[in-house]
Parts: sequence; structure tokens; C-alpha cells
Amino acid sequence: MTQHFDTIDLDTVRADTLGVLNRNHLNSAGAALMPIPVLAAVIGHLRRESEIGGYEAAAEATDRLATIHASIATLVGASAKEIAITENATVAWQRAFQSMSFAPGDRILTSRAEFAANYIVFLQAAARSGVLVEVVPDDEFGALDPNALARMIDDKVRLIAITWLPTNGGLINPAAAVGSIARANGIPYLLDGCQAVGQMTVDVETLGCDMFTATGRKFLRAPRGTGFLYMRQDMLDRTEPAMLDLFGAEVDRSGHYRMRTDARRFETWETNYSTRLGLGAAVDYALAIGIDAIQARCGVLARRLRDGLSGIGSVRLRDTGEQHSTIVSFSVEHVEASIVMQRLTRAGINVSVSPPASTPLDAAARKLPPVVRASPHYYNTIGEIDALVQAIEVI
Amino acid sequence: MTQHFDTIDLDTVRADTLGVLNRNHLNSAGAALMPIPVLAAVIGHLRRESEIGGYEAAAEATDRLATIHASIATLVGASAKEIAITENATVAWQRAFQSMSFAPGDRILTSRAEFAANYIVFLQAAARSGVLVEVVPDDEFGALDPNALARMIDDKVRLIAITWLPTNGGLINPAAAVGSIARANGIPYLLDGCQAVGQMTVDVETLGCDMFTATGRKFLRAPRGTGFLYMRQDMLDRTEPAMLDLFGAEVDRSGHYRMRTDARRFETWETNYSTRLGLGAAVDYALAIGIDAIQARCGVLARRLRDGLSGIGSVRLRDTGEQHSTIVSFSVEHVEASIVMQRLTRAGINVSVSPPASTPLDAAARKLPPVVRASPHYYNTIGEIDALVQAIEVI
Repeated sequence: MTQHFDTIDLDTVRADTLGVLNRNHLNSAGAALMPIPVLAAVIGHLRRESEIGGYEAAAEATDRLATIHASIATLVGASAKEIAITENATVAWQRAFQSMSFAPGDRILTSRAEFAANYIVFLQAAARSGVLVEVVPDDEFGALDPNALARMIDDKVRLIAITWLPTNGGLINPAAAVGSIARANGIPYLLDGCQAVGQMTVDVETLGCDMFTATGRKFLRAPRGTGFLYMRQDMLDRTEPAMLDLFGAEVDRSGHYRMRTDARRFETWETNYSTRLGLGAAVDYALAIGIDAIQARCGVLARRLRDGLSGIGSVRLRDTGEQHSTIVSFSVEHVEASIVMQRLTRAGINVSVSPPASTPLDAAARKLPPVVRASPHYYNTIGEIDALVQAIEVI
Repeated sequence: MTQHFDTIDLDTVRADTLGVLNRNHLNSAGAALMPIPVLAAVIGHLRRESEIGGYEAAAEATDRLATIHASIATLVGASAKEIAITENATVAWQRAFQSMSFAPGDRILTSRAEFAANYIVFLQAAARSGVLVEVVPDDEFGALDPNALARMIDDKVRLIAITWLPTNGGLINPAAAVGSIARANGIPYLLDGCQAVGQMTVDVETLGCDMFTATGRKFLRAPRGTGFLYMRQDMLDRTEPAMLDLFGAEVDRSGHYRMRTDARRFETWETNYSTRLGLGAAVDYALAIGIDAIQARCGVLARRLRDGLSGIGSVRLRDTGEQHSTIVSFSVEHVEASIVMQRLTRAGINVSVSPPASTPLDAAARKLPPVVRASPHYYNTIGEIDALVQAIEVI
């Protein structure tokens, strides 16, 4: 199923991707198109469950299921014991956050571009336990400013939690610089890498994060209903999930519970094996192509898209930061984002709209309206990029 | 796809169930066989996601997705606004439990047959917040004794949380009698109904529970990766999930978060639409057949199985209680449960093994070894039941 490509063999990749026959899919930041091996892994297991039973199909797939944590570990530069597979990134992030405890006056430092799901949890923590949630100022280009972060550190900072690539634009926050500061000060560092995994190199050592969360459905091309949590072993050694079940712990003869030693204590016994197999197939598919090759091609496509759009007078690119991911957000003068998206949909072009609600702090600071978000992936062609630019010109 | 049956039309039901061609599936308490309409709903959506994109397929399925909460509400006698769809029953139960707060000395009353996942969370709560976890004694037949429960009530009881049908046998706890006591005393009542939904009538009014959780994969015949939470409206009005996201809440202009008013505040924005559609199809399929008819047929099959097994001298039925569900657990003298299961598997008969770890209190009290669990469902035939009995006779 998976093949080794020296560079990306676009014909093979597109032959593996049913959706390219029907749509110009520029919405991989929403959900990328699953390649056939991923679809086959999920559907194959579902069929098997219906043919012989759910427990019985899982037993049959034991060997394959046992390799998935290691594949994910390879993808992010971790050890398999540091990986938990979850139902999605929100669940992964919440389980990580919730395993920490805060006292009144403790400080959580976050980024302006923080994803709303995370920010709402911070607000809950503030309301309940009197924790202070503080936003690290941006640099002149709109990225989190590591120098500003360094100046904010004191012994009340209990967590640094930021979004690496925000959902609403091409910003790449300086996650590794943040990691250096977190490590130097012994502060736990939770990095939301949802939009990074599958489009660029992720190495938890370089990043210096203690916890890293991601979803499967975006650039990784895995099915919906998948995500994972990385937790560094030394953090794991002193961390108990807020809620365990009979997979994460067992009750011993004395009536006490005892946790398992690996990160899978953050999983539940109940799980969906079909999507899990799909996640494994997606990771292996990405690794076989090569993340470097993927990142390089994404860079080429995103640059062409930014260049094309910036040549249109009525288009305003909404990216901040100096470095840019393959998420390109923009608005068209006098045309609402939802209308732009509708017209593109009619032309067979998939994009999405990032509403202010998904990044409340950044949207308020920049007075952002809903913005159109186009996010090519390595399987897109130059022709598809140009088709979007032309369609926007017409609008 | 779904049809109205006056009584159960076994030929149609079995024609919808691919697995009956390959196995004598007596493991519906583990995971039942999905009928074709469920499989088609899941696979159909997955294919559509790969053909046009994940967000785009969800948009296309909007109308169908909007009916699922109402279907589940019909199944359990609730209002659609009181239903949250979750990734599984453990997540549903944990989110319900975690929305409550406890002070040192608060009491939680539970059942001896409590599922290990729930019990481990109680132990965590005891260790963290000094809550007291107390087990309501059983009556002479091994079911929770409502009179004993009534005697335990005082103003320190903050929660009654029990398992209706335990995972390790045919016991049906007197959930409605418990509900009367909970209501009369104004104590929140969380009922784990994993093994009940799909095999018997569930009516949250009759049960008197404030929260009810279930999984899709068992007698409901839905895909793995599905579950739901019912929360009564008046409880919902005073309950905040431990963690919200941008689906359950939004950040208003003043920077505060505001929850949505319905039970879907317990869901996350990230979800798996394919399994959700499968859950909807499974509920509609069960409703079309009729829960009364299903319950009646399950009763016939389970009685025949219990009668057959109790006629074998070396077999010991492990059920407690006076009333019995379709979960039949037993052990065979001098043969370990895992060996029994292996031999049955070789004969094409699917059963499972309930280890003591899944019901730690009950297993310790009754000194239970791992027990064999056979759980027929309405799609099984009398012949399949007899085949199991014969196979056990040979063993």
C-alpha cells in the first residue's frame, strides 16, 4: 500500500486520492482527503467487524494495532511509550491540561492566536481555581515574541500552552524558542500542533515541549475521530490523568488502583479500532512519502497561492508572522467570506471560512471578520492553485 | 433500509446481518454485529469524505445528522435537548461525573457490580477530594437492595451512581427503585446503562435517573466509537461540564464564555460524523423492529441458554439476581474460561471472557474466576443457542 518516494510522485499520490477527481480540494486545514490506503484500512476493518464481530476483528488485527503508537512516535521524534491515541485533538489536549492542578494566583501563559477550544478551558480554570491566564505579546510581525515570554517568567508560571500554527492563518509560532525558555525554567509546556502534523517536520526534542497534541483529520490525512497526545516520559512519571479507567489502571488486591506506566494511561478501554487503523495507515503513508518532501512541496504551493492572491487588488491576505505555513487566509473587499466560499464551492473548489470565534483573542485584536481559508496540501497541483486565484479574480 | 416488523422477522433480520453467515455470534454484550444499514451509513459517509472532503461531506449530511439526537431521545424517553453524543460510554460517563464537585466527607453510593472504569474514578475522587465511596449491600439474590439504599441516605450523599446491568452476568439491578429513592431525596442519580440499551426498554422517566450513559457498540448494534449521555433538563440547568470547547461554549464580546443551553455542551466540536451516522442508523433500526419485540425475543433465547447450560453437571451459572438479562455467564469445572473460549472460537462460536478486573468489587466478594460470557441477541436462532450448549457438553 505505502511506497517509498524519493521525491513526491504526484501521479501516484493523486491516483491514491479519490477526491481529486471531483474537487479542487484546498481545505486540508479543515480535513484533508484520505488516501486509498487509509480508507481501505478503516473500511476493511469495519467490514471485518460486521463479518465476524467487533471483538473478534480486533483480536485478528492485534499485530497491526500494536505498531501504531510506534509509527506516531517516529512521526514526532518520541518513544512509543510516550504516545496515547485519542478520539480527537480536543480530547488529547483536555486530558493533558486536566492532568495538571492549579492554585489561585498560578499563571498560565498562552499565545494570542490560541485556538478557542483551549482558551475556553483557560477561562474555566480562571473562574474555578483563580488561575491567571496571560497572553504573551506578539513581535512586530504578529508571531509570539520569545523575548516577551522570557520577561514574563517567574515562579508563579505553572504552564506555557500555545498553538503552534493557528487555525486562522499562515502564522508559524516560534515553538522551539518557547521550548528553550520553558526548559530553562522547568515549566511544563503544552503545544497544540493540530495544523502542523502532516505538513511539516515535528520533533518533540527540538520543540522542547512536554506535551504535544494533534488531530488526524487535517494534514495527516487520517480519518475523523482520531488524534494523539505525546507526553514526555519524565512528565509522565509525575502525572496522573484526571480520570482513569480499567485500561489506564487496575484495582489491585488491596483495593487501590495502579496506573500503567506508559502514556496509554490517557486512553480508554473503549476505542474505535477502525479509525485507529486508519490513523496508523495515514502516519505510515506520510512517513513513506517523507515529511521533508511534503513540507517542501507544501511550501511551493503555498508561495504560489500567496503570490497569486497578493496580485489581486481587492484581496487582503490575513496571515501574520514572517514564516508561513500552507494555511492561507484572506478576505475579498466587499464580499463576505461565506459568499466567497459559496461561489468557490459552485466552481468545485473547497475552502473553508475561519470565523472570529475560532481564535477569539487574535480576531478581537486584529478586528478580523470571518476570513476565507485556503489550505493546499502536497497532492494539489499548480493548476489547482492557479484555478483558485482565477476564481477569486472573477469574484 | 429500516422496516416495520410486527414481530421480529428473523429471515429479514439475518439477511441484514452479514456476520451470521460466518459465526455463531453470542458476544453482543461485547460488540453486537452491525446490520447492513449501519455499516452502509458509516462506510457511505467515509467514502463520501474521501470523494469530496470531510467538511464538505458533513455539510451534505446536515439534515440526516440533525435527526440523530431525536432518535436517541425517542429510544430512552427523553427530549432531544437532553442528549449528547460522545465517542463512547466511558467518555459520556466521565463527562457526567466530572461535571459534579465533591467536598471531603461527601458520600457516593454505588453498587457492588459496578463496572471497573467507574469504580476506578471513584477511587481517584476519594484519593483527591476525600469523598467517601460506599457500596450499597445486595439483597439475598445478589441484586442491589433498595431498602438498604434507603437506610444509607443522609444529607452527605451527593451522588448515587450504579450500573444497571453489570458486564459480568445476567443481573438486572432495580434501577427504577433506586431512582425513586434518589428523587425522593433530591440526590443526583447517574445510571450506567451500557448493557441495557438495545436489548430492553429504557425510559429515563420510569428509571428516575438524572444522568444515563450508554455505548453504541453493544446491544444497540452501532459502530465502535459511539456512545451517548442523557442529562435531565433541570440538572443541565445547573451543570457545567468540566471542560468546554468552542462547540459547547463561545467567548462573548466581554471576553467571558457562555455555554449552549442543551446537553450538547458535553460534546466537542471535533467529532466523527461517519460513526455518528452509524449510531443514528442503529437506533432507527432498533426502533423500527421495536424494543418490546427485541426484549421478548432476547428473553426467550436467554432462558433457553440458561436452561440448557444448567442441565450440564460441570457447568456453574454465575448470574445473580432474580431477573435476568440476555448476558449469561458461567464457568466449566476444571476448564479455564480462556480455554473454553478458545475451543468455542474453533467451533465458530463467539463468546467472551469477563475477567475479575472488570467488576473488582463483585469479583472479590464472590471470589469469581474469569467467567465465560455468552450474550445472544434477537438475531440469533434457537439452533445457535443449542449449538453452544452442545459444544459446552463436549468440553
